[in-house]
Amino acid sequence: MGNTEKKHILLITTGGTIASVLGGEGLEPRRSDVMERELNQLRTYYRITVQDLMCLDSSNIRPEEWVIIARAIFEARGTCDGIVVSHGTDTMAYTASMATFMLENIDLPVVFTGSQLPLADFLSDGPGNLRTAFAMAASGAPGVFLAFDRKIMLGCRAVKVRAAGFSAFESINSRYVGNVTATGLALDRDALPKLTGPARFRPQASRQVFLLKLTPGLDPSIFDTLVDQGYRGIVIEAFGLGGMHFLQQYPGRGLAGAIERGVSVVVCSQCLYDSSNLNVYQVGKKLLDMGVIQGGDMTSEAALTKLMWAIGQGMSGEQIRALFRRSLAGEITL
Amino acid sequence: MGNTEKKHILLITTGGTIASVLGGEGLEPRRSDVMERELNQLRTYYRITVQDLMCLDSSNIRPEEWVIIARAIFEARGTCDGIVVSHGTDTMAYTASMATFMLENIDLPVVFTGSQLPLADFLSDGPGNLRTAFAMAASGAPGVFLAFDRKIMLGCRAVKVRAAGFSAFESINSRYVGNVTATGLALDRDALPKLTGPARFRPQASRQVFLLKLTPGLDPSIFDTLVDQGYRGIVIEAFGLGGMHFLQQYPGRGLAGAIERGVSVVVCSQCLYDSSNLNVYQVGKKLLDMGVIQGGDMTSEAALTKLMWAIGQGMSGEQIRALFRRSLAGEITL
Repeated sequence: MGNTEKKHILLITTGGTIASVLGGEGLEPRRSDVMERELNQLRTYYRITVQDLMCLDSSNIRPEEWVIIARAIFEARGTCDGIVVSHGTDTMAYTASMATFMLENIDLPVVFTGSQLPLADFLSDGPGNLRTAFAMAASGAPGVFLAFDRKIMLGCRAVKVRAAGFSAFESINSRYVGNVTATGLALDRDALPKLTGPARFRPQASRQVFLLKLTPGLDPSIFDTLVDQGYRGIVIEAFGLGGMHFLQQYPGRGLAGAIERGVSVVVCSQCLYDSSNLNVYQVGKKLLDMGVIQGGDMTSEAALTKLMWAIGQGMSGEQIRALFRRSLAGEITL
Repeated sequence: MGNTEKKHILLITTGGTIASVLGGEGLEPRRSDVMERELNQLRTYYRITVQDLMCLDSSNIRPEEWVIIARAIFEARGTCDGIVVSHGTDTMAYTASMATFMLENIDLPVVFTGSQLPLADFLSDGPGNLRTAFAMAASGAPGVFLAFDRKIMLGCRAVKVRAAGFSAFESINSRYVGNVTATGLALDRDALPKLTGPARFRPQASRQVFLLKLTPGLDPSIFDTLVDQGYRGIVIEAFGLGGMHFLQQYPGRGLAGAIERGVSVVVCSQCLYDSSNLNVYQVGKKLLDMGVIQGGDMTSEAALTKLMWAIGQGMSGEQIRALFRRSLAGEITL
């Protein structure tokens, strides 16, 4: 890279462990000198602009912040070759999934990353993760990605599977887009998302979506309660391929009642791996007749954010149903 | 084994894929001749008694059935050398976890198993899983286990991680108890649970426990709603090491209000691997001050069933707090 013109990468910081320092009550997000030192090293390879957007523990990142982050990304198009977003790991998979939908057909690389140990820690994974993310941001491959532990995955396929281990994120039910080896950053071109039109910024997303992880014997009145509370969408993490017990006798309106009252219900699996599939078992087929939407092999994070986004876009129940039969950016295998 | 006296194994059947046949609407649980043929083969090695207890798709197994299954196991003590329970895979981890608590210090091997493909299918994993389970049931090692894909794990550490793959269950944050290799069943004696007293059957369990998987920005009024609905325990699948956003300004009572109103709140991680730990981050320490109980490295299945069981036993909030600082059968690393 040395003699060619340096790629221009925008780093948008949002807080997280990578920017945390030890305060009186434990780690708290605060911008540190260490990040600056780290960036000075990276400037040997890239021209870097930094935009400090917010400084939050990612467990405090909510839909409001998703919009702010997505807007900053969209507005930076044309000013740089790629964007790295540093973010806490806790909710990074949710933010990366939602950014995928809010930024349809984004036409430059957008790479989320973070670290399990603060940059200031001698053993931190932050420097390595930042380098992987910068290399991906400079790759020219458009899309929303997550870079961690030398692996690149689609943002809408990422799940945080380890609370403490450095290999914190996995690409679920989908190939990795790339990885770093002794030969550098190797991309799997077939796994990259395909642009299908011009980039669009559509940030409207409903907060009225509930993620319901099933437990044996859960009282079906929960559906009545959620609808009464104003929820307009429910993603169910069902058992196995999509099993549920909600077909048994119940005096209230339950799941069927929620669907009749206009709530969109998407069924995923609480198993981390493989696809839900309601066509296999008798109980699943009854659910399809009732009107539930199949989540297929989507992650819960992707199903939740896609449903929040679909409802926020003002789509009708039928339009949402149709949307979930399409892959917008590789989030579902059809 | 050939010439020695055959061990006597009780097989308790509860339904599930392993006993499913193809009906008009997909797979449905029904006892088949194939199981009988399979057992005839196993009778070369073991004396087998079969007790057909129920025939349910395991997505329909509820707390009522947990009690029936646990009672059948407890009543069979002294009549056999070990017990195999065939069960649908969908909720097997929940049943095996709860059986661990209902059957404290159970003094013979109790081994849950099932299959991803019906026994009647040419490619079924059922025959192999049954053999692994029978071998473990004949091992003399007391405890509640789950046998699948040639691996044995503690029932209270099992999670169904694959909806379709044959390696459906993993032992989470805990060593496998054993596995089948070319040298037969190899047990890791140090990973076996230790008996601490006489076997006890204490089946009372509360249904008023809710598993809440956090999503970014989830409205904290959900706690008011759950308490109003009569829930007395809540297991939160928080972000990462235990992060939550519930500390922000909120006019209702929220999480703190639920705890003040006597609800026991246990915090686990929505990450599959590693332990939650509220001592690391500022936001986590505030939660501990508020009175939440640390779930440590327990699975959600174990935390849920342990809390249902603790409340069902009539324990006070303080007793429940103390119970969660103890490992009853290996379900938590202290």
